[in-house]
Amino acid sequence: MRLADLPTPQVLVDQARLVANLDRMQALATKRKKRLRPHAKTHKSPAIARMQLARGAMGICCAKLGEAEVFADAGCDDIRLAYPIAPFNAARLRALMNRARLSLIVDHQDVADAWSAEMIRAGQTLDVLVKVDVGFHRCGIDPATPDAAAFVRHIARLGGLRLRGLLSHAGHAYHSTSTAQCATIAQQEAEVLRDLADRVRALDVAIEEVSVGATPTARFSAAEAAPTELRPGNYAYYDRSQVALGSASLDDCALSVLATIVSRPAPDRVILDCGSKTLSSDLARGAGHPTGHGLVYPDPESTVPDETLVVERLSEEHAIVRATRDTKLRPGSRVRVLPNHACVVSNLVDCVRLVDGQTVVDSLPVAARGRIT
Amino acid sequence: MRLADLPTPQVLVDQARLVANLDRMQALATKRKKRLRPHAKTHKSPAIARMQLARGAMGICCAKLGEAEVFADAGCDDIRLAYPIAPFNAARLRALMNRARLSLIVDHQDVADAWSAEMIRAGQTLDVLVKVDVGFHRCGIDPATPDAAAFVRHIARLGGLRLRGLLSHAGHAYHSTSTAQCATIAQQEAEVLRDLADRVRALDVAIEEVSVGATPTARFSAAEAAPTELRPGNYAYYDRSQVALGSASLDDCALSVLATIVSRPAPDRVILDCGSKTLSSDLARGAGHPTGHGLVYPDPESTVPDETLVVERLSEEHAIVRATRDTKLRPGSRVRVLPNHACVVSNLVDCVRLVDGQTVVDSLPVAARGRIT
Repeated sequence: MRLADLPTPQVLVDQARLVANLDRMQALATKRKKRLRPHAKTHKSPAIARMQLARGAMGICCAKLGEAEVFADAGCDDIRLAYPIAPFNAARLRALMNRARLSLIVDHQDVADAWSAEMIRAGQTLDVLVKVDVGFHRCGIDPATPDAAAFVRHIARLGGLRLRGLLSHAGHAYHSTSTAQCATIAQQEAEVLRDLADRVRALDVAIEEVSVGATPTARFSAAEAAPTELRPGNYAYYDRSQVALGSASLDDCALSVLATIVSRPAPDRVILDCGSKTLSSDLARGAGHPTGHGLVYPDPESTVPDETLVVERLSEEHAIVRATRDTKLRPGSRVRVLPNHACVVSNLVDCVRLVDGQTVVDSLPVAARGRIT
Repeated sequence: MRLADLPTPQVLVDQARLVANLDRMQALATKRKKRLRPHAKTHKSPAIARMQLARGAMGICCAKLGEAEVFADAGCDDIRLAYPIAPFNAARLRALMNRARLSLIVDHQDVADAWSAEMIRAGQTLDVLVKVDVGFHRCGIDPATPDAAAFVRHIARLGGLRLRGLLSHAGHAYHSTSTAQCATIAQQEAEVLRDLADRVRALDVAIEEVSVGATPTARFSAAEAAPTELRPGNYAYYDRSQVALGSASLDDCALSVLATIVSRPAPDRVILDCGSKTLSSDLARGAGHPTGHGLVYPDPESTVPDETLVVERLSEEHAIVRATRDTKLRPGSRVRVLPNHACVVSNLVDCVRLVDGQTVVDSLPVAARGRIT
């Protein structure tokens, strides 16, 4: 099937770029002797997870239990839930432990105690990592407090749990305005984790794993000694924000949205059939604070975006593009849009189209889409 | 089943409020002798569409053909596509015309000519309305130009098409900062449409329908003479933006998100398990420019939001809430969040839970979710 035969909008994934992205990150991890455990939230696709595992990933990472269930069904047998899963999920989690090696994060004593009680009752042992706040200020224990190491020791001593180590997410790297800042954040993260691991080891508690994960910091984290595991997710596709953050070039971006011009109501106004239900409302991150809702490639084959076409506003099913110069786009013309944030785009569709140039090679179900519980 | 038995996050719909919202809008339309044709994009649920039709709605409105297909499958037989459907969809549209009375909008001569040719070829007749730009500056012909009436006449004369009338969407009402401004916009819209209809009728072209649609303007449009049809959508659920726009009170809002506190990493920080994959990244509209990503009701039964809990940031699976005062919320506590924009929330989930107090009455599939083509 050809691209031209598809109705629009469609989420396209360039096969060659996807493969190159997976290969490059795996090569970096292998070279630096880090275990790669990709976050599957970006693609939510068992087929792409299998490509990552075949290249040497030692498992995958998910946020929600519902996602892990989908990947376990597809044969992934080592899944880390980098999310503070609530203990009311114990029955589902225990069932999943019979099908896959599972681990999750804890950052609160009550929650850890509850998981411990659940596991003792069930006669099972759950692998856990302590989530450490390295500056994003979302979840995680504060490593600067004197009792941080004692908290980790408390977890290590709980029955029914097996402490694997420490885990962090430098999400504040997404608010960087330069690549140098991403490098600094990765350095600081490694330092904080090494320091806390040392303090914990001084209490006679083993820390086997130090897991870090975020695409903008991945290549810098790989060069640090402390991390044993990298959990980037977005690198499979990249997007406009990652380009602005310096993680990738435009030519690495594998995911784009194919759209049709459906109205041309004024000389400077072009209406596309992809709105916030396809592109999401996520704004772009990174250097120069990119504005608008994506970059427009003025025809499906073009390799260079046309920055005179500004995706100024989104309605749910419309993108309102301001043409700052004359454009030959008219109703029926097709364009591609590079979205600000790829992960949330794949969460909006039931399948993505794997493409090789203008040929549709395959349709990949976004099998873990919408698995929010 | 009780609310407490559900995993979270969940999208809840309060049954009594939903029914009251549907009744109230139908009563308004009936009293003012307007036909009500609700936009189904808000709920995407055949069950709710049937409730609207049972109350007197004369049909429904959709954006995309894929949505119309779902509602036709469910027995809706009068569907207006208030979207400039591209002619490449002709085969699907013609198939759907055999199952439902369909109409769509046109605002460009090339597109109208292409639809005309398609219909002549197929020996079918397609109902169309001309989309008029009443100030939102998205789609639609500019009614202020002298040749606007001639454009409508051109459409009326095309073979294979049957001109039904004019259609507009005052989407700029969502950028209002007061209810008075919404009223003015509804008035201006009616005036513009009446004027254009008069100019078209002066060319001996019949305008049977004048269709307007947007929840913030609906009650004002109902009081105007020109409109024959109202197409609000959001009124089924309402949301935080509609409250700020004066369309509804907090106690009318039927849709909310049930969430669990999964982490409590600092005294002023509460982490909920509903992120942008549940609440979307849509910001709030309306008076006072409400900030944040929703209003927090501090337990599932509370009837008053706690404005000291500010939903400051969203990640995909986390809401980061800043507690500006002491709060007793701790891991395992549950809250409800009133989202900024209900339509995009229902598009993120496969089903919503219909609730009566703390009892789950039914699960309604969001059957037309993700139907973007």
